[in-house]
Amino acid sequence: MGLNEECGVFAIYDSNGNCARSTYYGLYALQHRGQEDCGIATINNLELSCHKGTGLVGERFSEHILTELNGTMAIGHVRYGSANSLHLENAQPLTLTYIKGSLAVAHNGKLINSAELKREYEYKGAVFHTTTDSEVIAYIIAQARLHSGSAEAAVNQAVKRLKGAYSLVVMSSRKLIAARDPWGFRPMCIGRKGDAIIFASESCALDSIEATFVRDIDPGEIVWVENGQLFSNRENCTNDTSLCIFELLYFARPDSVIDGQSVYDARINAGKCLAKDYPINADVVIGVPDSGLVAAKGYSIESGIPYNDGFIKNRYIGRTFIKPAQSTREEEVKIKLNPLRATVNGKSVVMIDDSIVRGTTMIQIARLLREAGAKEIHVLSSAPKFISQCFFGTDIPTKDNLFACNYTTEEMRSILGVDSLGFLNTKSLAAIAPDSKCSFCDACFTENYPMLHSNET
Amino acid sequence: MGLNEECGVFAIYDSNGNCARSTYYGLYALQHRGQEDCGIATINNLELSCHKGTGLVGERFSEHILTELNGTMAIGHVRYGSANSLHLENAQPLTLTYIKGSLAVAHNGKLINSAELKREYEYKGAVFHTTTDSEVIAYIIAQARLHSGSAEAAVNQAVKRLKGAYSLVVMSSRKLIAARDPWGFRPMCIGRKGDAIIFASESCALDSIEATFVRDIDPGEIVWVENGQLFSNRENCTNDTSLCIFELLYFARPDSVIDGQSVYDARINAGKCLAKDYPINADVVIGVPDSGLVAAKGYSIESGIPYNDGFIKNRYIGRTFIKPAQSTREEEVKIKLNPLRATVNGKSVVMIDDSIVRGTTMIQIARLLREAGAKEIHVLSSAPKFISQCFFGTDIPTKDNLFACNYTTEEMRSILGVDSLGFLNTKSLAAIAPDSKCSFCDACFTENYPMLHSNET
Amino acid sequence: MGLNEECGVFAIYDSNGNCARSTYYGLYALQHRGQEDCGIATINNLELSCHKGTGLVGERFSEHILTELNGTMAIGHVRYGSANSLHLENAQPLTLTYIKGSLAVAHNGKLINSAELKREYEYKGAVFHTTTDSEVIAYIIAQARLHSGSAEAAVNQAVKRLKGAYSLVVMSSRKLIAARDPWGFRPMCIGRKGDAIIFASESCALDSIEATFVRDIDPGEIVWVENGQLFSNRENCTNDTSLCIFELLYFARPDSVIDGQSVYDARINAGKCLAKDYPINADVVIGVPDSGLVAAKGYSIESGIPYNDGFIKNRYIGRTFIKPAQSTREEEVKIKLNPLRATVNGKSVVMIDDSIVRGTTMIQIARLLREAGAKEIHVLSSAPKFISQCFFGTDIPTKDNLFACNYTTEEMRSILGVDSLGFLNTKSLAAIAPDSKCSFCDACFTENYPMLHSNET
Amino acid sequence: MGLNEECGVFAIYDSNGNCARSTYYGLYALQHRGQEDCGIATINNLELSCHKGTGLVGERFSEHILTELNGTMAIGHVRYGSANSLHLENAQPLTLTYIKGSLAVAHNGKLINSAELKREYEYKGAVFHTTTDSEVIAYIIAQARLHSGSAEAAVNQAVKRLKGAYSLVVMSSRKLIAARDPWGFRPMCIGRKGDAIIFASESCALDSIEATFVRDIDPGEIVWVENGQLFSNRENCTNDTSLCIFELLYFARPDSVIDGQSVYDARINAGKCLAKDYPINADVVIGVPDSGLVAAKGYSIESGIPYNDGFIKNRYIGRTFIKPAQSTREEEVKIKLNPLRATVNGKSVVMIDDSIVRGTTMIQIARLLREAGAKEIHVLSSAPKFISQCFFGTDIPTKDNLFACNYTTEEMRSILGVDSLGFLNTKSLAAIAPDSKCSFCDACFTENYPMLHSNET
Repeated sequence: MGLNEECGVFAIYDSNGNCARSTYYGLYALQHRGQEDCGIATINNLELSCHKGTGLVGERFSEHILTELNGTMAIGHVRYGSANSLHLENAQPLTLTYIKGSLAVAHNGKLINSAELKREYEYKGAVFHTTTDSEVIAYIIAQARLHSGSAEAAVNQAVKRLKGAYSLVVMSSRKLIAARDPWGFRPMCIGRKGDAIIFASESCALDSIEATFVRDIDPGEIVWVENGQLFSNRENCTNDTSLCIFELLYFARPDSVIDGQSVYDARINAGKCLAKDYPINADVVIGVPDSGLVAAKGYSIESGIPYNDGFIKNRYIGRTFIKPAQSTREEEVKIKLNPLRATVNGKSVVMIDDSIVRGTTMIQIARLLREAGAKEIHVLSSAPKFISQCFFGTDIPTKDNLFACNYTTEEMRSILGVDSLGFLNTKSLAAIAPDSKCSFCDACFTENYPMLHSNET
Repeated sequence: MGLNEECGVFAIYDSNGNCARSTYYGLYALQHRGQEDCGIATINNLELSCHKGTGLVGERFSEHILTELNGTMAIGHVRYGSANSLHLENAQPLTLTYIKGSLAVAHNGKLINSAELKREYEYKGAVFHTTTDSEVIAYIIAQARLHSGSAEAAVNQAVKRLKGAYSLVVMSSRKLIAARDPWGFRPMCIGRKGDAIIFASESCALDSIEATFVRDIDPGEIVWVENGQLFSNRENCTNDTSLCIFELLYFARPDSVIDGQSVYDARINAGKCLAKDYPINADVVIGVPDSGLVAAKGYSIESGIPYNDGFIKNRYIGRTFIKPAQSTREEEVKIKLNPLRATVNGKSVVMIDDSIVRGTTMIQIARLLREAGAKEIHVLSSAPKFISQCFFGTDIPTKDNLFACNYTTEEMRSILGVDSLGFLNTKSLAAIAPDSKCSFCDACFTENYPMLHSNET
Repeated sequence: MGLNEECGVFAIYDSNGNCARSTYYGLYALQHRGQEDCGIATINNLELSCHKGTGLVGERFSEHILTELNGTMAIGHVRYGSANSLHLENAQPLTLTYIKGSLAVAHNGKLINSAELKREYEYKGAVFHTTTDSEVIAYIIAQARLHSGSAEAAVNQAVKRLKGAYSLVVMSSRKLIAARDPWGFRPMCIGRKGDAIIFASESCALDSIEATFVRDIDPGEIVWVENGQLFSNRENCTNDTSLCIFELLYFARPDSVIDGQSVYDARINAGKCLAKDYPINADVVIGVPDSGLVAAKGYSIESGIPYNDGFIKNRYIGRTFIKPAQSTREEEVKIKLNPLRATVNGKSVVMIDDSIVRGTTMIQIARLLREAGAKEIHVLSSAPKFISQCFFGTDIPTKDNLFACNYTTEEMRSILGVDSLGFLNTKSLAAIAPDSKCSFCDACFTENYPMLHSNET
Repeated sequence: MGLNEECGVFAIYDSNGNCARSTYYGLYALQHRGQEDCGIATINNLELSCHKGTGLVGERFSEHILTELNGTMAIGHVRYGSANSLHLENAQPLTLTYIKGSLAVAHNGKLINSAELKREYEYKGAVFHTTTDSEVIAYIIAQARLHSGSAEAAVNQAVKRLKGAYSLVVMSSRKLIAARDPWGFRPMCIGRKGDAIIFASESCALDSIEATFVRDIDPGEIVWVENGQLFSNRENCTNDTSLCIFELLYFARPDSVIDGQSVYDARINAGKCLAKDYPINADVVIGVPDSGLVAAKGYSIESGIPYNDGFIKNRYIGRTFIKPAQSTREEEVKIKLNPLRATVNGKSVVMIDDSIVRGTTMIQIARLLREAGAKEIHVLSSAPKFISQCFFGTDIPTKDNLFACNYTTEEMRSILGVDSLGFLNTKSLAAIAPDSKCSFCDACFTENYPMLHSNET
């Protein structure tokens, strides 16, 4: 609760047109991956158009704009980021012209050598309009294109220079290209609907336009569409993958399937693991809406303790919500979440949240539960303790602000004012995703950074 | 799914001020009762101010407007209604001046003698600015005030002329008054927070500002606040009450308690009744989000068949959502609801929705379920069959458009393409609300109209 | 410069439809009479629609709204007034239903017995939604209609109760009615375009839709359109007329002709009078844009001193203009008006403004002129000294704030820092409008209030 | 009437801060040079911020944004261009990072070797985000900076590569630089206010913030501010200058002084030339507002025929104006311009407009004049006949659409339906600007393109 990732991407090639509209629906399904900016770029008779800016997909686009954009290829992007009216240029897709005509790029992830690459090229006379990794990537692709026989070859040359997380979509006048970093930090998959070919951050975006899931793009793989055909280059693929485990625990929509693993099942499994590790003699299991609900069901299945709704969440709280006068965090939580007294009054309650980052919100939630009459409160986090930062795009606070970096479990329990407190064991992480074709990055829980240990040292 | 009621009301008296802000939070909690218009009127040093218009509470009000409104008394309103830029005057609260100064009125419900009353007064020279019942009521109160010793006495005189459903809040320069019709069609309750006194459509609005629930306003009761004290007049109270049963089944928020009955429990009970009436040998029970979920849990509890999430609902669909090109209802459903294949694939599924009105949406939902691999689909409605219109504010289609008016259950089952279909038995309605102090109006299911049979004929 | 009047009205009957669109253009031409709110109400197949709100005509109405409004009759209104988001109801036209169906009213002017009438009717149970005179008038018309054989008869009965300034347009389901008060304080005229009949505050609105000016509505006259024919009732007409002289001096557009008098010519005449009363040995005559320019030309014609442009006015200053940081009035004037050095440098300059109310702006303008090198500055006001308030709709400051109420002419000259200062002589007022069929109200210059002296005392 | 130029620029260095606010006022004064987009970029403690987008300066900027921008250096831009929501990136200033930190560029003019330069750099791997010349210039500056000792040296190196019209402002982290092309096509001048130093397209922008005009930037000159001191490099200056004559005739504000020539005087002189070349025995001289008014005064002075106002212009027509239904250009003109019958009825009229481009508007204006009773109409254009396109930024239609390219003067007169028609003689052009330190480009009237004849062939 409270962590943010950078983005979601969507791309479609459909010779029948209307690609902007399909992308609009695809981005709707990926909106949970970023709510600040969004954008769609299309190619229509070789001409590139783009509309982007702040706001939700549903606020930003109108029937009129979708009709203007149209297109037989499109890429789209949703983005999390601090809205800053003075730096609007960071919205994506990035659109530009280069030696071969038009180029559009959108990207989910974070490079760790971005500043270094930028500097290197600035020393050769490059200019940058934004602070996005996408622009660095676009520039390297444009440079690579000078010595490459095709756009996909240029992308291949370019990604060899990138270090970090990237799930990337690139659109040139005639080709639609997607590339995923060799570690596979962020998800990306391929779908089909009739002759149309789609690339998307999550499979739920394919479902939203009733497209069929074909397969995940493998870590390191580059795929592209040319004249309606799908091609692949796997020369950068490795076996040393590290999908962000937090995609399964929190970021992704539960109806997505990522690298073979159902997100929903992974959260059920996380709940089951908690039940095994923290057997509690309780009356009821509840989850913190929305992201703690599935793990709570998993705990219930494994433990046999009945699952019930513990809170009603106000579905109308939006970006323009005015905070309570004294800005007391307490009141704010109450407006968003209302406990169901019938569920918890006089009961011993197991309450599961997706994670505990700063602890501030959980203090208020536990208070609400006590005031609603809970006899005992046992708090479980379906993620392990956060102990370190992320270099690959997840917006984790500094150690100063991480609850688990500053207190022992017993101290945290006492601060929350609850009867027990537990976190998913980092050893259980593998167990929650038995179907995953990828290994995982769990560095924020273990400080075991995949790329750094192997490549850096 | 798909029915609408007219409104929600909120009123607060707080000598410490900030009443606009409290009303803002209260309306947030009542937003599910109306999303088209909203408004807040306040009294500040005897002066009446009002801000109202189209949009959600969070869109309509800014920090600046709340500060301008301020006030030691306030009434607020959320409204469902077809947005029409040419008739904005229908937004509430209605504010006006009369012989005794300022008057503000907001109202949930529907009068059945409104046109008659309007006509009667027009023949005496009255003019009306809106088409709302609130204006008719306000006018009668102003007329009554000429011969009454107090505002509350005028309200009492006025309500004797009204026939139909009304949960009414009235604010004069010095008094805050609430009145509920003698049948109690729509809910309204009283809360306290320190010295502040609150009237609200549902108890969840009290919770949202951390106020304490005091009691329901009884059908027929008039209550008012004068100099910080709460008074009551019960002379219009009867024993012949008829709370709209659809408040419990669908309209109200599950965390509200109405006339003694927890809404959440009532929906659990509806699910249990379905389980008793329709025992099915199935693998899993699912609900249609959001309003079918609680009944599905009730079915699971009673039947022992496991409950699971069957769909993921897109939380970002707003009023500006652009419908699919061919406006095919099919695609629209898919964007809003995505089935969880893991839950239903190869399974025999019991799927519960809050009601089936036209049948069009359910046809699509059942299709999605089949496509996700469900082996058997058993559809149950936690409301009985809709067979007739509502005169008291629920927006039920004409018989031409009611599924159950045009087909037998077997025909409906066949049209939906499911394995079985069942509706809550009208005889079970009483059973779902054992704690209710009120009797119910179930005329839309039974054609047994409470007021009409007793008073009209 | 800096005075405001209340409103402009426009009405059209055209069996060919598109009345909203014609009204839109008519209001565009009347925009100078009020820039805060605007609105259009139409009758279409007996049905009344209305769109109104804050903003300029061009901001408030869209193609879509005009098409929705359409109509075979329409009335429109532009309004000056302090924009207050908490009291939007004051925008006009006022629309309501009464015993005979729909009624819409819009009005320019100010009643002096409005509060009295309101009180009288409140004592009979009336309620008021706004603080406008229009609502009082509408209510009296509705009351009168109970005992009148027609809408126009009801208007006739109603206006007999009104005291003050009103140029009124009324639209019922089948009739379009206009009425002008017996003193004729505010202008109103009749036009035709094919079979269409138009009533408008000023003739420039007729020109804008290429309609033909037919005649002025006489003070006291009621005119109406029924089945496409124009009728008139003159029973309230008197010879004791008092058109606001400030309409000719400042309010009206120079291309309008009011009661026989060209506004442009009146201003030329005012300039000529000044030349006769204040012969100055100067090099050049300039005007303060825009409203002082015509009188400056008149001065030039009479005196033979060449006229030239003295200032360039910034045409882009709008309502959202951000004032200079220290809100120093000085800088603000400079942004709006830039002196033409070539015109004034080293010259003896006669500068004419339409009036001097508070003196604050003129202090700055004179300073700019000095800084641009003017050797001598002679300031003349084409209006006499303001010494008293207006009861009929002109927004004149209190005596505390009137320059001429607090200083002698010599003191004012010294404060302005100019070489001489003169005001139009009140005795010259008659001379500026030789073609006018009306006498004038000049009470703000003379304290000789037309209505009060005859009727009140 | 109807021609557009590309832009206006403003730049300020003020160690006291508030540069965004000063630029806001400066752009207000330059708004006539472009009404589509606008933007301000500032440097504050070495950090670059920018706000830009569609709309007028007064619509685009708020108090809040100006405060956020603040800054001790700023550059601003107003732009004419077809508003296209899909290509917003073209708004200026352009902001980017390069080897030395931040860089912002804004530019008025048009390069003729832009495509060539772009292509050259794309072949070296460059990418472009916009279609503006500014980006090409920025890129060349960044490239030049690799081999230059300072930002101003890089600008100097860069401008040597540019061919065409540019009045350019450049802002790096520590320096504010302005450069004007060696031909001086577009104006730019230097001002001071206290210690602050300002560069602006026109001197009226200096006046608006009460800064003092210092001098024009010479054609070919580069000036810059470093640590509050002003420096100049004149190595690119030549004697072969060609200021756009249309700046004096139409584009610039009449209160500006450009290269020593008062714009107001130039227009007076144009009118005087017309009077000499076309002596007419008329009763009155009028101008088409606003841009024909000054020349009409000049004609009056020279001829002795009285000048008078012929039209009243509606000051409220904005970008959202809805065109008449049948989009008949006729009605549209009437709404914007209303003839003053008193001025023209029964008179022989000389009417002067700034230019006649397509002829369509003049046909309507002449019609209005005839309908207002003009006995004779003599139309004069204070610009010569347009016969050819402009390569340097003026938006002149193709020859197909130029009135004077398709008809003889006699034919044009007949089409306009007037009694005589005359254009300023190209030989008179020099005479209208006796004070100008620059020679002129009059290629659109003569096909004598300054740069092309000397450098190209």
